[in-house]
Amino acid sequence: MATAADITAMRRAITLAARGLGSTSPNPVVGCVITDAAGATAGEGFHQRAGGPHAEVHALREAGGRARGGTAYVTLEPCDHTGRTGPCAQALLEAGISRVVYAVGDPDPRAAGGGATLRQAGVGVEQGLLAEEAEEGNAAWLTSVRLGRPHVLWKYAATLDGRVAAADATSRWITSPEARADVHRLRAEADAVVVGSGTARADDPHLAVRALDGATQPLRVVVDTEATAVRPGARVLDDAAPTLVAVAEGAPAGHLPETAVLRLPRAATGPGLDVGALLTALHTRGVRSVLLEGGPTLAGAFVAAGAVDKVVGYLAPVLLGAGPAALADAGISTLSQALRLEVTETVRIGPDLRVTAVPAPARKGN
Amino acid sequence: MATAADITAMRRAITLAARGLGSTSPNPVVGCVITDAAGATAGEGFHQRAGGPHAEVHALREAGGRARGGTAYVTLEPCDHTGRTGPCAQALLEAGISRVVYAVGDPDPRAAGGGATLRQAGVGVEQGLLAEEAEEGNAAWLTSVRLGRPHVLWKYAATLDGRVAAADATSRWITSPEARADVHRLRAEADAVVVGSGTARADDPHLAVRALDGATQPLRVVVDTEATAVRPGARVLDDAAPTLVAVAEGAPAGHLPETAVLRLPRAATGPGLDVGALLTALHTRGVRSVLLEGGPTLAGAFVAAGAVDKVVGYLAPVLLGAGPAALADAGISTLSQALRLEVTETVRIGPDLRVTAVPAPARKGN
Repeated sequence: MATAADITAMRRAITLAARGLGSTSPNPVVGCVITDAAGATAGEGFHQRAGGPHAEVHALREAGGRARGGTAYVTLEPCDHTGRTGPCAQALLEAGISRVVYAVGDPDPRAAGGGATLRQAGVGVEQGLLAEEAEEGNAAWLTSVRLGRPHVLWKYAATLDGRVAAADATSRWITSPEARADVHRLRAEADAVVVGSGTARADDPHLAVRALDGATQPLRVVVDTEATAVRPGARVLDDAAPTLVAVAEGAPAGHLPETAVLRLPRAATGPGLDVGALLTALHTRGVRSVLLEGGPTLAGAFVAAGAVDKVVGYLAPVLLGAGPAALADAGISTLSQALRLEVTETVRIGPDLRVTAVPAPARKGN
Repeated sequence: MATAADITAMRRAITLAARGLGSTSPNPVVGCVITDAAGATAGEGFHQRAGGPHAEVHALREAGGRARGGTAYVTLEPCDHTGRTGPCAQALLEAGISRVVYAVGDPDPRAAGGGATLRQAGVGVEQGLLAEEAEEGNAAWLTSVRLGRPHVLWKYAATLDGRVAAADATSRWITSPEARADVHRLRAEADAVVVGSGTARADDPHLAVRALDGATQPLRVVVDTEATAVRPGARVLDDAAPTLVAVAEGAPAGHLPETAVLRLPRAATGPGLDVGALLTALHTRGVRSVLLEGGPTLAGAFVAAGAVDKVVGYLAPVLLGAGPAALADAGISTLSQALRLEVTETVRIGPDLRVTAVPAPARKGN
């Protein structure tokens, strides 16, 4: 049975894990809290970046000799394999930890088994404490392991009547400075930011993260099927962050830097590129989380491909009555085909609302 | 200085006042709490329907002799005129009330002055306690007095991407049973429910209030400019509630019951009827609050006329990517002309969100 102290320690570990969001790919985020034999906190740590020490190692270093006879709270099952760092199960055993509580089992077959190894060595092992909270914090990575493609968060900003721009295409600024700052946080947490050719052409976006010290820059991706939207000198081609321009096989991309061009097959139906192929290509490059920033047509292609795992809508209390909608051409023609979601959070961001939703369970596998 | 007891009593009076919503027009809603000389609650009351006793009279009856030396908390300044009932200021004096606390001054010149009369008679009079809350409860009536037209609440139900129907026009049901029940509460609180010809043609709506015992039925109004949408046998023409079909002067309305036809001038620009003339006609008939239920074109005409005082949007966590938007043709072509609102409330209604907003102060007079 989990005690109140167990819950407090695991919640702290989950908070620590979140500090790694955006910089650990292709690894998960992990947090760890070590308490000594008397139950006092002896060490804390989180996985900071791929190639660096795992959360358990950070926490064990801080705990030193106090780890002996103590408990380790970890948000993910300790690894049992030797990758760029030694196996954490072994490190916990060597430190004399007598009890390990972890929230989520490791779905990666190459890493799993740490729990069993610890148990065989006589350590008390418990799984599942605050598993739901811990899964949410690691949603991107867990999705990527389970589906073999990056987790996709579709973000949009619209008026209360669903418009992303006015009739004359003016769109700066529908949402508030507070909402736009929040989007930069989402970018900092994502491995890649993806926009379509319409957005690239209309806004010449930069897509890098600003105003957040020490943020890891995401890979910038423009889906520019015909290779006509991103021109030499486009802001997205500067050196603030790496960039890929995804173009159709055979599209004339000679004006783009060779290293920036990603050639992909066209979609089997409809315009644009094959969304699945795009996501596979990004996954191969270590991208575990994608922030899809639109526009409406590209978002529609992702919805049609069943490749939206989370939706964050910034709704400005503004009415327009004309102008393009946030989502277009998703292949849905009647209400019974609609993509049904569940709202998981609603919060005010300055004068705007931020609504977070995920596909409803019954439809999750669609 | 208001004490905690004063605030408690006034808040109770505001709660009591709200019970009259939908049945007091053309009068305001008013609540009253009387405490005895020792500060204990002696009587409570609210204005239940036009022609019936005012809130103060109900509360004084319940308090009886305990009112002597006591305090009366009233959400609106006690009246000083003799209408269908005697002046409340006089009734409070006769009952020996020694202190009167009211939230909002009466903006109706025919009724105002009760505060002064009481003060002249030696009663302690204080104004302004919880005025904002009390104003909100009486928003419809206060708007109608100040502007000489009914208060207009525009209600819509849309998907997260702003659609009120799918591409094939299917729209039942985008929002949940809980949200639809909430709309019936809004109808019960309104003096009139207004829809346009598109809604009448597509949905053959009934527009009466169901499932709420003792609810006063609102006046049902269909804006049917060319007199082609409401046909004999339409559900809105049954005897569940009174109905008006607003048609253009000269439109052939012989197929409609003579008493149901309201002839109005056409809009000076654009299609449809003159929104100001419609609201004036309704005001003349004692309508102080209108629930505008759409569709998008009629809502656009109201927005264009500056005749939307409050917006309630029911947002279903559903994505469609195609289909009509909630608001159309509001005369706004660029972002700087957008109608800016302030969100006053966000609440979950079953799986849906209900967002309430009012025009932002800087634009309120536009």
